Amino acid sequence: MMHSQLFPKTLKEASRDAVAANHKLLVRGGFMDQLMAGSWTLLPLGWRVVGKINNIIRAEMNATGGQELALPLLHSKEIWNETGRWESAADIMYTLKDSREREYALSFTHEEIIMDLIRKHVSSYKDLPIKIYQFSTKFRQELRATGGILRGREFLMKDMYSAHESEEDLMAYYEEVKQAYLKIFARLGLEVIVTEASGGVFTDKHTHEFQVLAESGEDTIYYCSECKQGQNKEVLSVAEGDKCPWCSLGKVVVGKSIEVGNIFPLGTKYATDMKAFFTDKNGKQQPFWFGSYGIGPTRVLGTLVEVHHDEKGILWPKEVAPFAAHLVGLKDAGEVYEELQSAGIEVLYDDSDRSAGEKFADADLLGIPVRLVVSAKTGDKIEWKDRNSDETRLMTRPEVVSALSTI
Amino acid sequence: MMHSQLFPKTLKEASRDAVAANHKLLVRGGFMDQLMAGSWTLLPLGWRVVGKINNIIRAEMNATGGQELALPLLHSKEIWNETGRWESAADIMYTLKDSREREYALSFTHEEIIMDLIRKHVSSYKDLPIKIYQFSTKFRQELRATGGILRGREFLMKDMYSAHESEEDLMAYYEEVKQAYLKIFARLGLEVIVTEASGGVFTDKHTHEFQVLAESGEDTIYYCSECKQGQNKEVLSVAEGDKCPWCSLGKVVVGKSIEVGNIFPLGTKYATDMKAFFTDKNGKQQPFWFGSYGIGPTRVLGTLVEVHHDEKGILWPKEVAPFAAHLVGLKDAGEVYEELQSAGIEVLYDDSDRSAGEKFADADLLGIPVRLVVSAKTGDKIEWKDRNSDETRLMTRPEVVSALSTI
Repeated sequence: MMHSQLFPKTLKEASRDAVAANHKLLVRGGFMDQLMAGSWTLLPLGWRVVGKINNIIRAEMNATGGQELALPLLHSKEIWNETGRWESAADIMYTLKDSREREYALSFTHEEIIMDLIRKHVSSYKDLPIKIYQFSTKFRQELRATGGILRGREFLMKDMYSAHESEEDLMAYYEEVKQAYLKIFARLGLEVIVTEASGGVFTDKHTHEFQVLAESGEDTIYYCSECKQGQNKEVLSVAEGDKCPWCSLGKVVVGKSIEVGNIFPLGTKYATDMKAFFTDKNGKQQPFWFGSYGIGPTRVLGTLVEVHHDEKGILWPKEVAPFAAHLVGLKDAGEVYEELQSAGIEVLYDDSDRSAGEKFADADLLGIPVRLVVSAKTGDKIEWKDRNSDETRLMTRPEVVSALSTI
Repeated sequence: MMHSQLFPKTLKEASRDAVAANHKLLVRGGFMDQLMAGSWTLLPLGWRVVGKINNIIRAEMNATGGQELALPLLHSKEIWNETGRWESAADIMYTLKDSREREYALSFTHEEIIMDLIRKHVSSYKDLPIKIYQFSTKFRQELRATGGILRGREFLMKDMYSAHESEEDLMAYYEEVKQAYLKIFARLGLEVIVTEASGGVFTDKHTHEFQVLAESGEDTIYYCSECKQGQNKEVLSVAEGDKCPWCSLGKVVVGKSIEVGNIFPLGTKYATDMKAFFTDKNGKQQPFWFGSYGIGPTRVLGTLVEVHHDEKGILWPKEVAPFAAHLVGLKDAGEVYEELQSAGIEVLYDDSDRSAGEKFADADLLGIPVRLVVSAKTGDKIEWKDRNSDETRLMTRPEVVSALSTI
């Protein structure tokens, strides 16, 4: 893409209320824009990154046998009443009435909707297990919508749901998803701590959260720095300084962190409440064993910036960077741009008539992993600089194409 | 994909209130499920089709220089008040209050939000034109949510917006988008009539709709069957039987039809109302010239079924079919399935132990363009049947792979 086409351009400053790094840098870089507190537009650059995050999540969900679908966001009061959550989740749900005074909620999750779908379509153990997921907007009343895109009243969520004929089968898949999540976060460039937690408005059972240590995190976790397992405060059975009860190698330490994913072994409560039964191998009616599994791609976007930035800007991990290379033309570099594009390399080409200093500052702010400079000084060659290094080197065009093609 | 993995399976009957072909066939085929009146879950098969529809739209929007982003769905009363639409669109907007009694609307369109974004980020003619779009959920209070997925209280929309320095530039791009839309609908397998219309709650100006003739259509249009141009009732200046005023070749006829897209040359009203100005070449402050352009992918899904079905089921056009081929195994066809998969061909493999009759009925209902049968009778060969033909022929595996690869 040409810089001249990019909407919007970078900003010199974020607003005064920006405290978190993701808020400052994603706003200044033109990745996102605040419509109102807790409400963010994902601008073209930010949406590119979220698209890459989503593709990684999608690939790993599909690898577990998941199938993607799309569920409605507006739900009737009646369906939420079936599990009692119209009342128990009243604080966080937005509710509304239509012109006929019928009541609805805006979705903050989809367990009830999925269970309704399953009870309509599945009657036999032969059709189990079911593994379905979506990427969709979730709404949550947030009185303290701070921390940039880490906490919003409206956000993107990948939510997966699975239904099984037995607890054994549910827990085997739960473990498979846990491993898939570890793979996802590793690919995303995030080091996570798998943390035992309570189930909030979802379940009475223990659940697992995927936590990333970061200054802007709002959660406190107790974890072992050796095995990267932990507990949050609600289920705490260890104390700071304890020998690690999981691997018995490390010690328990305390950290402020960000929850980027969670998995819930929900059991049979939802099926029982909603009278969702199937016929098992012996011809008996049984409630479905149910699980749900979430990752917030927009929160991941913010978390990536929290853990991958310096005083000049963002440092995107390669798999999620909006472009593979940022080509800075200090003379006409149109030919180089064309050559990289035809080689299938995603390039942002700064073709503006701004000063070298302004262009370099933009490149540092935007955080694309590789900066390429073409100038009078570089002659026929191209100057290559990694975002995470100060070293530059001159390379020929074929060398650049080949190096970027293998990334 | 294996039939055994598919969720859900096909149904023998749709509900009694299903009248429209898209309602009956998409529900029976497991493409969609009704949560409540006017509210549809896109099941994995339906979501695959919508994904293909979206990819075609995306490619053509990008070709006009469009950039994709994602805008919030919850908007404050204040921003809608800036153009007066909090009042003028009150009948169709869902509104709600949060726990602090602040008022919001659920988006049925995004002109105000885009204009807010533009006034924050664009100050000079040098940054124009701007062409941005999204795919997102829209909400609309519908008292008569009938016609299957053609009319919903919640639906998917591709909405594009453009801002320009002059009317001339706006209208040139408006024409470019009109041509892009014609290309999109041709690729989607829909024959459209470009229809002059009024602008409803969007604008006082004349606009254009893209209409598809179909029995379930709710609109009445007057059009020329030669040049495929027309008018709707609101702006009518022709009468049935008139000589065509556009091409002067055909005659004006009347038809019930479905609106699948619309384009609005909005002019400067939104910018003026919202005090959104830029500095022109002469240093003068000017309001942005604004346009918006919509296509409803979920309505396109329904329309495709309305115009491409027979008494047995759906006939998907190739570009949007959920799979390229439906492999029916009347003996084990696992090897053929693997071979097609490795050749990169999208196949649905019916590996179930149902009767041949049931499998063939499913294949007709689902409407995948090519049915392949492997049975004791076909020996080493494969029986090929196009969905839109009764003819079958025996082909070798390499012949099948090569024929499907060139589609």
